[in-house]
Amino acid sequence: MKQISFTRGVPPNESIPVEKIAECAHDVTLQAGPSILQYAPAAGYAPLRQLIAERRDTSAENVVLGQGSLQILDILLHDPLQPGDVVAVEQPTYDRVLKLIRRAGLRILPIDLEDDGLNIEQLEEALRQGEKVRLIYVIPDFQNPTGRVMSLQKRVRLGELAQQYGFQIVEDSPYRALRYAGEKIRSIYELYPSQTIQLSSFSKIICPGLRVGYALLPPDIARHVCAYAEDTYINPSYLNQAIVQCFIERGYLDSHLCELKDRYRQRLDVMQAMLEKTMTSHATWTPTQGGFFIGLFLNGVDDNKNLITRAKQVALNLSNGAGFFVEGGKNFIRLPFCSVAPQDIEEGIQRLASVIQP
Amino acid sequence: MKQISFTRGVPPNESIPVEKIAECAHDVTLQAGPSILQYAPAAGYAPLRQLIAERRDTSAENVVLGQGSLQILDILLHDPLQPGDVVAVEQPTYDRVLKLIRRAGLRILPIDLEDDGLNIEQLEEALRQGEKVRLIYVIPDFQNPTGRVMSLQKRVRLGELAQQYGFQIVEDSPYRALRYAGEKIRSIYELYPSQTIQLSSFSKIICPGLRVGYALLPPDIARHVCAYAEDTYINPSYLNQAIVQCFIERGYLDSHLCELKDRYRQRLDVMQAMLEKTMTSHATWTPTQGGFFIGLFLNGVDDNKNLITRAKQVALNLSNGAGFFVEGGKNFIRLPFCSVAPQDIEEGIQRLASVIQP
Repeated sequence: MKQISFTRGVPPNESIPVEKIAECAHDVTLQAGPSILQYAPAAGYAPLRQLIAERRDTSAENVVLGQGSLQILDILLHDPLQPGDVVAVEQPTYDRVLKLIRRAGLRILPIDLEDDGLNIEQLEEALRQGEKVRLIYVIPDFQNPTGRVMSLQKRVRLGELAQQYGFQIVEDSPYRALRYAGEKIRSIYELYPSQTIQLSSFSKIICPGLRVGYALLPPDIARHVCAYAEDTYINPSYLNQAIVQCFIERGYLDSHLCELKDRYRQRLDVMQAMLEKTMTSHATWTPTQGGFFIGLFLNGVDDNKNLITRAKQVALNLSNGAGFFVEGGKNFIRLPFCSVAPQDIEEGIQRLASVIQP
Repeated sequence: MKQISFTRGVPPNESIPVEKIAECAHDVTLQAGPSILQYAPAAGYAPLRQLIAERRDTSAENVVLGQGSLQILDILLHDPLQPGDVVAVEQPTYDRVLKLIRRAGLRILPIDLEDDGLNIEQLEEALRQGEKVRLIYVIPDFQNPTGRVMSLQKRVRLGELAQQYGFQIVEDSPYRALRYAGEKIRSIYELYPSQTIQLSSFSKIICPGLRVGYALLPPDIARHVCAYAEDTYINPSYLNQAIVQCFIERGYLDSHLCELKDRYRQRLDVMQAMLEKTMTSHATWTPTQGGFFIGLFLNGVDDNKNLITRAKQVALNLSNGAGFFVEGGKNFIRLPFCSVAPQDIEEGIQRLASVIQP
């Protein structure tokens, strides 16, 4: 039986524009030469910083490039934060980030995630009771692992609370450009640029292997991040950043995004239709219009380890949803749909249904 | 007057093999495609790990690739080390490493550096008196910032002490392949592979901008490093690593190394001849046969800040040598010679002599 995996949130290999990357890599190396092959400032390749700034209606001093965006987050968790400081997160959230926060010796304050994003009342209550939150990490657009989108009203309220209580918002936005239907909601960074650090990357819209991520952030924090980055890795690879810049300038990104959206929209539609068909009495989930994931909360399941084992027996690989929670989550399964072919999504959800209702 | 800089230890732009890198970047992207553009294991691109292992007579499980080697060192300073642990270093040593050790909350134990390397008796005395050294960081080949080479006898003795007192040796070797005269000395890693982590990179022998560094290390430490790296940046860029692998496999590295050595040997010869001609009564230094640096200890200078200011007035840029010391070093100047054209080295040393003996 063919193995089907609903595990990692990666783009499918067939979505990687190999020929165009090869072309850009060749051309930028010849054109830019030593300027992208020498040691260089930690903030990243100036033409790409400039290009991102223009596309995001800000200035280049607000853009820092990194080796993926995760490492920029790791830097933020070390400076200005100090061990013992409180970091609030949505629960569930991206599992690697929970690890990073713990590793930095910070205390995690989990805030429940609702269909329309963070439970703002719960956060506000914690703040009112004296929790000294220094930073909150949220994924407002097509959240990992649930696919949920934070409402505009909650984005505004979160920004107000950040101003009132003096904490920073880290808005992780890798999936924001991947909306397959519906209307864009203003980002928290657009609403509150001085309270917000927006992380994003080209991993989901060009390819992960270039490791080009970036942060939009206030210039004083940018200077801190760059100083820390320089001491850690001197500078990120400008070659990779120049490839991205060339890819955008030649117009490849915009047409590639259209292709990606067409492919992923179809996969999302198949998954949502299959869930509707097979799961309504066994699980709940929040319908989504973009990103990589749907999150399934299983009814009457106490511990999904058993389910994962049974799924393996029908050649279906699931990952343990509890990793996305500080506590609980034993009835949660994350379903990534972008990297799975439509017929495999159909077959996979059928297998999942068969092990849930034996 | 033309500015002359004896400041950063970078390769000269004219030494970067731009066309060959462009060719390799293009070809490997087309050939390897998604296998170098997708998310991947943190240990690095398997064919390059294998190639390094073969060239170094070890196995691939002992090789971890990183985004430069500095970041691998930063990981080692966080795991298995804990804040408060003692790290011994040569004094003077690479200034960025002093920063990294301090930033990780570790205690630095500086050990004097002699003409033939570390003052082993001093280290041994400290160990005998109960210093719980967990790790020692040394640059045995063409040390940064002095150009000194550790004798074989001292390498052997250091390995014995590491075994006896149970500490790890980090042997940083970015300049080892750049020997312009004389005979290679066995590396500490070759002598004591289970006590040693050897760091190296392609920054000085291909170009810095690819950010491809690596560690040779015991497999159990390799697993730790990879787990930490994965949580920090998921994986280093395989594209860059595949470019390096292609560059080596096509035979470009070996011929490029010959060119580099010819160019750098000439520059070193000019610098040493000029120092002999102008500095013998004003400074001491250790003659070297490789690497990037000569280190100058100025006689009768209490604080070289004054000297740096006077040098600026004759369009000569020097960096403050005290940064390479935990304490002292105010009479020290590092002279990088690889990135400066021979006529500028001549002119630069003359200017330096003129401000020292006004």
